Amino acid sequence: MMKKPLAVVLVSGGMDSCVTAAIAREEYELAMLHANYGQRTERRELRAFKEIAEFFGVAGQLVIPLEHLSTIKGSSLTDPSIPVCDAELTNREIPTSYVPFRNANILAAAVSWAEVLAASAIFVGAVEEDASGYPDCRKEFFRAFSETIRIGTKPNTVLQIATPIIDMSKAEIVLRGKALDAPFHLTWSCYRQEDVACGTCDSCALRLRGFQIAGVDDPIPYDKKPMYPHRQNRAYSP
Amino acid sequence: MMKKPLAVVLVSGGMDSCVTAAIAREEYELAMLHANYGQRTERRELRAFKEIAEFFGVAGQLVIPLEHLSTIKGSSLTDPSIPVCDAELTNREIPTSYVPFRNANILAAAVSWAEVLAASAIFVGAVEEDASGYPDCRKEFFRAFSETIRIGTKPNTVLQIATPIIDMSKAEIVLRGKALDAPFHLTWSCYRQEDVACGTCDSCALRLRGFQIAGVDDPIPYDKKPMYPHRQNRAYSP
Repeated sequence: MMKKPLAVVLVSGGMDSCVTAAIAREEYELAMLHANYGQRTERRELRAFKEIAEFFGVAGQLVIPLEHLSTIKGSSLTDPSIPVCDAELTNREIPTSYVPFRNANILAAAVSWAEVLAASAIFVGAVEEDASGYPDCRKEFFRAFSETIRIGTKPNTVLQIATPIIDMSKAEIVLRGKALDAPFHLTWSCYRQEDVACGTCDSCALRLRGFQIAGVDDPIPYDKKPMYPHRQNRAYSP
Repeated sequence: MMKKPLAVVLVSGGMDSCVTAAIAREEYELAMLHANYGQRTERRELRAFKEIAEFFGVAGQLVIPLEHLSTIKGSSLTDPSIPVCDAELTNREIPTSYVPFRNANILAAAVSWAEVLAASAIFVGAVEEDASGYPDCRKEFFRAFSETIRIGTKPNTVLQIATPIIDMSKAEIVLRGKALDAPFHLTWSCYRQEDVACGTCDSCALRLRGFQIAGVDDPIPYDKKPMYPHRQNRAYSP
């Protein structure tokens, strides 16, 4: 039997990266990377990362401290003086939860690690349509970053960025995860709380609506489970 | 008097970034960023950074811990089991001191900070010709990264990467620094030691040769000061 090639999967602890890991596992052996960046729910997300990595039997784990992303402030996710807003799923502005260039920081670390491991892919669970309109979640961004990798690494390093769910809706991600037995019960998405998900922040709203549209029960505990309207998803257009 | 625009300068503590800061100061107000990444001479470089920032009267200072760059190993700069080689200034291979994708990690952090500060430029003291042939020191790399910034930040963020010394030889950098009264006596370049520079590692050799060709006395203390041949500089060609 041929040995599978190696992929580094960015695992935040949320449902998107968990399903992405389940997809990557079909063709790759996995290593998993998680970033602590002083986000409000840092400890809960780290626990989710560890439990997901254990679920998938992943030995290669790397947790990176990107504390400068909270030192510099500028985001409601990392700056206690900026409140986490309730979701406005039709809003077209970049939300206050945007952490400037966060994905580039995490990807750069992933590339360094992948180059040492001689991995052939980096899997990212970015979702363009409903991932809150962050500029560093779009296909163009990953394309530009891929070019930066090609030029900025050793000539014999060949490293692909894979974003298998980037065009899916949250409901499609739920269904794909369900089909692959992704451990949704271990994931954490809430931006506000660590014990019980609030159900009303941006991240909870997108998640709950996805499960509602898919007709699947979300197994994690919520404070409130509002019914969200099945409107057009918010998409960021510059 | 018009207020100068703001620039973030990446300051390693070496002579190149010090001269770059002196150049940037002509047109910009400065903020300075330094990365600790578990390099052998981390404490000495941090001291150089702080003294250079103080010399230039810079209030905005950010020190970021990129400890994953040493956790992942793969470089003689961060991995004690790989020896720091003596310089071979005509070698065309990527040296063992290459830290995978290091500059992308540092630049990503700088962009996050610059976006919050609303800075308009990031100054990098990269030198293509004699910066040891690292792939992430070349003009193409900075060009690709600029495109990634344009796409991955907010639409109203306009952030230029400036590499004013990238085409200079070390001797030219010495002369430019001399003309701008750059504080060479506060800089540190040695890859091996923290008290007295070794004079024979890659970084010492490039520096000493630059001062020798420029006919300027290098003010920092050395264990040895060999005379280096004025040969063609090593350049990395992929």
